[in-house]
Amino acid sequence: MIQGSRPTPPFAPDGRGDKIVPRPRSAKVAMIGAGQLARMTHQAAVDLDIDLVVLAESTGDSAVGAGAAYRLGSSSCLADVRAVAEGADVVTFDHELVPNAHLVKLEQLGHHLRPAPPALSLAQDKLRARTVLSASGFPVPAFAAVSSREDVSAFAEACGWPIVLKSSSGGYDGRGVHVVESSSQVAQLFDLRSGGTTRWLAEEFVDIAAELAILVARTVSGHVALYPAVQTVQQDGICRYLLMPASLAAPVIERASRMARSIADGIDATGVLAVEMFLDTGGQLLVNELALRPHNSGHATIEACETSQFHQHLRAVLDWPLGAPTMRSAAATVNLIGGTSAISPSTQLLRALEVRNAHIHLYGKGFRPGRKLGHVTALAASTEEALDIAQTAAAEFTEP
Amino acid sequence: MIQGSRPTPPFAPDGRGDKIVPRPRSAKVAMIGAGQLARMTHQAAVDLDIDLVVLAESTGDSAVGAGAAYRLGSSSCLADVRAVAEGADVVTFDHELVPNAHLVKLEQLGHHLRPAPPALSLAQDKLRARTVLSASGFPVPAFAAVSSREDVSAFAEACGWPIVLKSSSGGYDGRGVHVVESSSQVAQLFDLRSGGTTRWLAEEFVDIAAELAILVARTVSGHVALYPAVQTVQQDGICRYLLMPASLAAPVIERASRMARSIADGIDATGVLAVEMFLDTGGQLLVNELALRPHNSGHATIEACETSQFHQHLRAVLDWPLGAPTMRSAAATVNLIGGTSAISPSTQLLRALEVRNAHIHLYGKGFRPGRKLGHVTALAASTEEALDIAQTAAAEFTEP
Repeated sequence: MIQGSRPTPPFAPDGRGDKIVPRPRSAKVAMIGAGQLARMTHQAAVDLDIDLVVLAESTGDSAVGAGAAYRLGSSSCLADVRAVAEGADVVTFDHELVPNAHLVKLEQLGHHLRPAPPALSLAQDKLRARTVLSASGFPVPAFAAVSSREDVSAFAEACGWPIVLKSSSGGYDGRGVHVVESSSQVAQLFDLRSGGTTRWLAEEFVDIAAELAILVARTVSGHVALYPAVQTVQQDGICRYLLMPASLAAPVIERASRMARSIADGIDATGVLAVEMFLDTGGQLLVNELALRPHNSGHATIEACETSQFHQHLRAVLDWPLGAPTMRSAAATVNLIGGTSAISPSTQLLRALEVRNAHIHLYGKGFRPGRKLGHVTALAASTEEALDIAQTAAAEFTEP
Repeated sequence: MIQGSRPTPPFAPDGRGDKIVPRPRSAKVAMIGAGQLARMTHQAAVDLDIDLVVLAESTGDSAVGAGAAYRLGSSSCLADVRAVAEGADVVTFDHELVPNAHLVKLEQLGHHLRPAPPALSLAQDKLRARTVLSASGFPVPAFAAVSSREDVSAFAEACGWPIVLKSSSGGYDGRGVHVVESSSQVAQLFDLRSGGTTRWLAEEFVDIAAELAILVARTVSGHVALYPAVQTVQQDGICRYLLMPASLAAPVIERASRMARSIADGIDATGVLAVEMFLDTGGQLLVNELALRPHNSGHATIEACETSQFHQHLRAVLDWPLGAPTMRSAAATVNLIGGTSAISPSTQLLRALEVRNAHIHLYGKGFRPGRKLGHVTALAASTEEALDIAQTAAAEFTEP
């Protein structure tokens, strides 16, 4: 073994003077939206030298702060969406808030939308998702489209008060989801015909024993990778923390995984699909919602799995070989939710960094109460231990 | 447990209409240089919402392609270095090619350089490093400053041919390092006084049994985190692959780690310090070179350790609490070195992605033979198994 090369003239170019050949980037992906999912997708895109460009509403958007290439515009404006899609190999999504008609138009113009509009519509329209899933034989909570107080009362008579009233689109993190106790409350609080734009969905109130999410990545060619089940724990409709793997009986997890895989194939999903489910107190699994993009429930995959959901989403939408979804360690993720005052990184972050083995991800977002500002993941021998670490670090961000 | 919040008026702001309070970023770090180390540091900076700005020579630089904020300029131009340092909490380095006098000037102007110029000079000047380490009692290969053929012959007479001739500064990846067999070869190939700018270092030819690197992170306050020893395997002076942990006897690793830690304290290193060592066939450890920045030998820490060297470097230079350097799994990294033709991502990358559990990192750099273009890391039950996976994936990039 030698520690140097054999002699060459010391002032010869040594290879350094050779001309550099610019490299082609491996692919160009346009992402509609520039939130934290786009931010973390950007971090993954760097590894594979993928040229990611995001459609951002402002330069303050999370992915823009991470250095993603961006175009400013609105996801509800066709011209803006077209502009960001221009020249991209595929178009994918950080959120679902693009009018489906625009997506159909984009497809007609020759853009490759991943997921395609029919699949994405199931994340855009809860009523449609329930109808499609139910018609395909997947168990969902009892539901009905409602457009009057009488509709709600009729539905509630069949399954009993309280019921859940949801807007069919646009809601997330518990927004647009309401538990309603009586017909009079409906009259008092909801204008079910208001403006004619919001469609309402009434749903049985499920006695929930646990909530879980199954993440499936599916390529354009139909290859599938299934992540370990994640248990999600909500409070006020916002997911507070997640455990991977879910602490549920193996047969339940197998059933949920099979179901998620069937749904992915059935709806022709491309990219990451998160299937959120309830396990009711009777042991029944019910499909709640679908998200056709990287999802909050999958953040632990960054540290805990061979392939993070962000790398996987890119690979899936580009129809590249999928990575192994194998879990290396039990993990827990705690969301950092905006409290009553803004995060002060200079003090709170430093205290959180003192917590051994806590992996902190800040989204670089402005503060607003109830807003997701970051997350903390920890890996440990058990999900309980991991949760303890992640919660200890996360608590530093909620204390002054 | 409930799946939604108690009723609120459906068109109330639900928190969404609240004013967003812009957040302060957690810190501002200037990095001199925009190569792959800056690129991966940028990926880490995003997690902690650190505002990283790099000094880039061109927009084609690796870190610029990853979206790092940048200023264009030369690291050898004081005005350019000052411009990027402006407003940063600390200044740190992707490479050592800044004239030390500029660094001293920057310090005088009130900038916080991490590492400080005296420590950094040991990575800039091999002769100085040898002299300082040797004077401090650390074992180094026998060496001498040489400025004539007679100097070289006198040195070689004392320790025998062949000897190694190195330029004292500027060399890396085996460049500027030459094995010389005879005095006549010196006369033939080297102008030891040429231009007066290159200083030469003659060094005994060590019979190397193994090469290893110890990465130490050290904060401004002197807190230290030691990574597991890495074994490095070179060919033609370029590191081809790395194994973590090093497959060496425990007492050797303990000795090497103690030595690296002492050096870090002794030279007042801040940030990541890589101590490269030879283990000679007689079982002696000799310190070869120091790098005061994230280092090629530490790339496996991204996947294999609780805290990557890039996160750790940022934490150390900012005097923040260090993360755990604990290794979660045995790992191997294979460097992707430019061969005879450019990487074609569209074919080679896709084949490499077929290799299960290979973590591919492309640096987004233009092609040049002998240039580091990326790396592949794999984790497995043993370093041998990990190396096999990483080499299988890396091989896809060298074949047409």
